[in-house]
Amino acid sequence: MIARVFAPLTAGLPGALGLTDDAAILSAPSGRQLVLTMDTLVQDVHFLFDGSVQQASDAAYKALAVNVSDLVAKAADPLAYMLSLTLPAVGSTDWLEGLAEGFRQGQSDWSIHLAGGDTVRGTSGLALTVTAIGSVPQETAVLRRNARPGDRLIVTGTIGDAWAGLHVCQSSEAFAHLSRTDADFLKNRYQRPRPKLGIVEALRTYASAAMDISDGLILDLERMCRASGVGACLRAPQVPLSAPIQQLVNNQKVSLTDALSGGDDYEILAAVPPDALGAFAEAARHAGVSIAEVGEIIATLGVSVVGDDGNSLSITRKGWDHLG
Amino acid sequence: MIARVFAPLTAGLPGALGLTDDAAILSAPSGRQLVLTMDTLVQDVHFLFDGSVQQASDAAYKALAVNVSDLVAKAADPLAYMLSLTLPAVGSTDWLEGLAEGFRQGQSDWSIHLAGGDTVRGTSGLALTVTAIGSVPQETAVLRRNARPGDRLIVTGTIGDAWAGLHVCQSSEAFAHLSRTDADFLKNRYQRPRPKLGIVEALRTYASAAMDISDGLILDLERMCRASGVGACLRAPQVPLSAPIQQLVNNQKVSLTDALSGGDDYEILAAVPPDALGAFAEAARHAGVSIAEVGEIIATLGVSVVGDDGNSLSITRKGWDHLG
Repeated sequence: MIARVFAPLTAGLPGALGLTDDAAILSAPSGRQLVLTMDTLVQDVHFLFDGSVQQASDAAYKALAVNVSDLVAKAADPLAYMLSLTLPAVGSTDWLEGLAEGFRQGQSDWSIHLAGGDTVRGTSGLALTVTAIGSVPQETAVLRRNARPGDRLIVTGTIGDAWAGLHVCQSSEAFAHLSRTDADFLKNRYQRPRPKLGIVEALRTYASAAMDISDGLILDLERMCRASGVGACLRAPQVPLSAPIQQLVNNQKVSLTDALSGGDDYEILAAVPPDALGAFAEAARHAGVSIAEVGEIIATLGVSVVGDDGNSLSITRKGWDHLG
Repeated sequence: MIARVFAPLTAGLPGALGLTDDAAILSAPSGRQLVLTMDTLVQDVHFLFDGSVQQASDAAYKALAVNVSDLVAKAADPLAYMLSLTLPAVGSTDWLEGLAEGFRQGQSDWSIHLAGGDTVRGTSGLALTVTAIGSVPQETAVLRRNARPGDRLIVTGTIGDAWAGLHVCQSSEAFAHLSRTDADFLKNRYQRPRPKLGIVEALRTYASAAMDISDGLILDLERMCRASGVGACLRAPQVPLSAPIQQLVNNQKVSLTDALSGGDDYEILAAVPPDALGAFAEAARHAGVSIAEVGEIIATLGVSVVGDDGNSLSITRKGWDHLG
């Protein structure tokens, strides 16, 4: 049953052996290194799941998205993925076709194929673990740890939407007066992250360091700085916000710093040397990816977040620590 | 904390980046293809876990073993693995060092290194997902689907020990009269599977098809036959048993067919052409891996299991179907 539903997702990848074996065979494209990343998404922790086909599809799409997002951040081209599916302890699996459909949509959006995996019956809810494999030309992967003082901080897209979308899903009070259109936009940003595949080439060519924003911009920036042995100044008013989030901030329904530390953005944070900034921006524009300069890397350790007046903002919660 | 405990396991693999990044960089050894396999082990389903350091270590060792066993079955040399760790919803994690120690022991036994992974907090018990990566010279991976009529069926080691070991752990009545030594031997076979790494070269050189025995010899043989479009005759009395299992069968405490369908063996089932059998056996002997010929591949679909008298045995349960 599982094999029948998922085998079509291996089309185009002969080494998947149509899911008839315990392993997949993969050749690294000539002259390239492989980039591997792995993320587990657990029901009620990383996604909402009511047993519906729609939420199964959203969960699958997100599980693939967060892994592809990690590949993008390393400037890798997606190649294949392995999927481990932990089924809920009880209940029907009528939603399995929806799960496969969510993966199919992600595969189509990001040119990646199912290579193999495992299915087990768990003791709790649904859990999805994806190991994604991408490739980069030798020695061109962009790491977290090479940010240098003077580099400009760049983010793609807009920040805080997914965080707000989760609150909309949970019917939080602050979000009750949004228009239907705005509410749907934010929910979609939470349920259907869109890795910025278009930025791969620009990152590979120009960036010193990059990572995707999964646990909150401020927390993830701190991690980049720690790995690189540097600090950063983040100029909060320059962080791009979508119209609904800007309006919520303007109306003081939410604080700017909450939006900046909400997480689940799956946008890219990159450090780009100042002399490469113009070319990076041009490459991003050419790829149709919106970017914004939001600060810079400094030699002094630690991250300061400054507001309109140039003073540091007080941050109560920097992001989402899954083990916190 | 997690990074501190697990980072030492990346020693020898620079592309793991010391677990400081979201991804790992891996180069396929020159002229080789990669083989990928993925298995999830869930507490109370695939391993016992009481929160002790010892059981954490056993769980880790087993999680790595079952993946390495899949690599061995494809004739792949282990290279690296990714680990996703789902922590229990509640309780201390004092056992984390034990978990790392189990992985360290497996790494040492099978020459494999931690490349990266993920840690999340789950909503139930401990779960471990491993994606193992091995390598083979181009086009030399041994698949499940190439068994041919006339091929002889080979198994490594002894069958049924782990199944009995689980029953010993669960204090099943039939196993109550075992000596302490025998009981410990069987428990160890359940808790500490030992992939038959020594057989890799012989498989690669001589076998038509291979897989590891995880869900029961009879069920797994059926799967090999189905993938290959063939059938098989398994001669039950020729299946090698350890002394404790042989004694249990002789004393009619357990049935032979139960032992053959118990699963968790992580021995290798291979189909070897008759004219290669001598050389295969010599290579296995040279590698110190005991093997036995237990039947043959036939053109007629289906698996028959025959007893001493040449008549088919009735099989009530062919193996362990995790989704059954």
